[in-house]
Amino acid sequence: MIQPSKIKTREPRITLVGAGPGDPELITMKGANALKDADVVLYDALVNEKVLEYASPESIKVFVGKRSGAHSSTQEEINKLMVDYALHYGHVVRLKGGDPFVFGRGYEELNFAASYSIPAQVIPGLSSSISVPGLQQIPVTHRGLSESFWVVTGTTTSGAISNDLYEAVRTKATVVVLMGLGKLKEIVKLYQTEHKNNLPVAVIQSGSTDHEQLAIGIVDTIVEVVEEKKITAPAVLVFGEVVSLHPQFQPIRDFFAAIKEEL
Amino acid sequence: MIQPSKIKTREPRITLVGAGPGDPELITMKGANALKDADVVLYDALVNEKVLEYASPESIKVFVGKRSGAHSSTQEEINKLMVDYALHYGHVVRLKGGDPFVFGRGYEELNFAASYSIPAQVIPGLSSSISVPGLQQIPVTHRGLSESFWVVTGTTTSGAISNDLYEAVRTKATVVVLMGLGKLKEIVKLYQTEHKNNLPVAVIQSGSTDHEQLAIGIVDTIVEVVEEKKITAPAVLVFGEVVSLHPQFQPIRDFFAAIKEEL
Repeated sequence: MIQPSKIKTREPRITLVGAGPGDPELITMKGANALKDADVVLYDALVNEKVLEYASPESIKVFVGKRSGAHSSTQEEINKLMVDYALHYGHVVRLKGGDPFVFGRGYEELNFAASYSIPAQVIPGLSSSISVPGLQQIPVTHRGLSESFWVVTGTTTSGAISNDLYEAVRTKATVVVLMGLGKLKEIVKLYQTEHKNNLPVAVIQSGSTDHEQLAIGIVDTIVEVVEEKKITAPAVLVFGEVVSLHPQFQPIRDFFAAIKEEL
Repeated sequence: MIQPSKIKTREPRITLVGAGPGDPELITMKGANALKDADVVLYDALVNEKVLEYASPESIKVFVGKRSGAHSSTQEEINKLMVDYALHYGHVVRLKGGDPFVFGRGYEELNFAASYSIPAQVIPGLSSSISVPGLQQIPVTHRGLSESFWVVTGTTTSGAISNDLYEAVRTKATVVVLMGLGKLKEIVKLYQTEHKNNLPVAVIQSGSTDHEQLAIGIVDTIVEVVEEKKITAPAVLVFGEVVSLHPQFQPIRDFFAAIKEEL
């Protein structure tokens, strides 16, 4: 016999939750509480599955393995799943890597929920653009080195690098590129065109997870270092003087100083 | 008689923790756990005091009320306090509003700790630059509207607006200005010089707290709206087409469309 207390008649609602960069402890308290309350969790490829442990064991967990560059039809499928589950089960948490609004297509999902009059809420997450360099103790801003940071996607809908990158390489901003590892050579060329051959660069793979790997160099050497270290996606690229604050940069600086003396 | 278990002989260490934008639930699980373990908490003016409730009742809590634009001597005092407490009490959590590395001078504190060979760790927090617009359901990036966002400080060491802002206003990036409310008129003038008079703008006061307030307009009207609504610091300024996605922007759009028809 089904106990009345077990019959759920919950109002449909959707919560977009940012899971942060990977480490399950780097989700917010609010995000974890939303997971606890969820009837259904739809989660991305970029989400660490350990984060799902905050959700109730009885909740339905659905992998909607979307990576950057997926077709819009896939996004449409996710939208529909999200609404279907909300109408049938109640509270859907849409769990996304990083922050839902940093190249996360979060607004499209909110908009779709609104078209069905399903109330939707957003709980931000740590964007890897700031937190992944930060965990390596590379500050995106630092007095005397950088008064701003510019976060750009490496992968646009067309497959080309963003036009914004052409402008970003000319500025003094710390430039952080997400989903850009496949375009590293192209981006390096842009910096070389601006004669910024010695600008410090860091490439951080899978920040905050067990698979974290760091490559540090300058514009002219970073492609080689990344190949040597076999860095793979997902990775965060950081271009800017702030990278020189990392302890691994000191030997590079010393090396160039020695060369200069010899000349 | 003192029980042996109550005598603490903890190794000195320092954890920089980002408290996020204000809502105490918007700290990370890891940040809250660090607070639980802290012997001493040094906290900023921008930190919601409710966040301190995660810390043990026995821990020492010290307010180091530093706001943007404070003198460097104050920063020196904080650095010294941090190290002194670590040497005498063990684990010091340095709790900062937002993220420690987004105009937070976090690296200076890490560096000072290192000069005393005290191990230091960083736990990132939600930067208000992304999370405060996000909680208003304004995405910093959105397909077709913005492929990047540029975060700039409104207040530099010299007191002038950042040179980076002169460049930022020319680009298609979503521009987010922190600590910039006092410079709003100057920033608006930069946009007007670029003939971006109709660019959507949002100003959000005390995002994620009970004192949250929103002003929405365009470059030519935002100063007036902010004055009408008596918006005060701390506030996040957002310039960009993404602001047009906010429901409050629709009437503004309709108003301009009506004017255009009349002409």
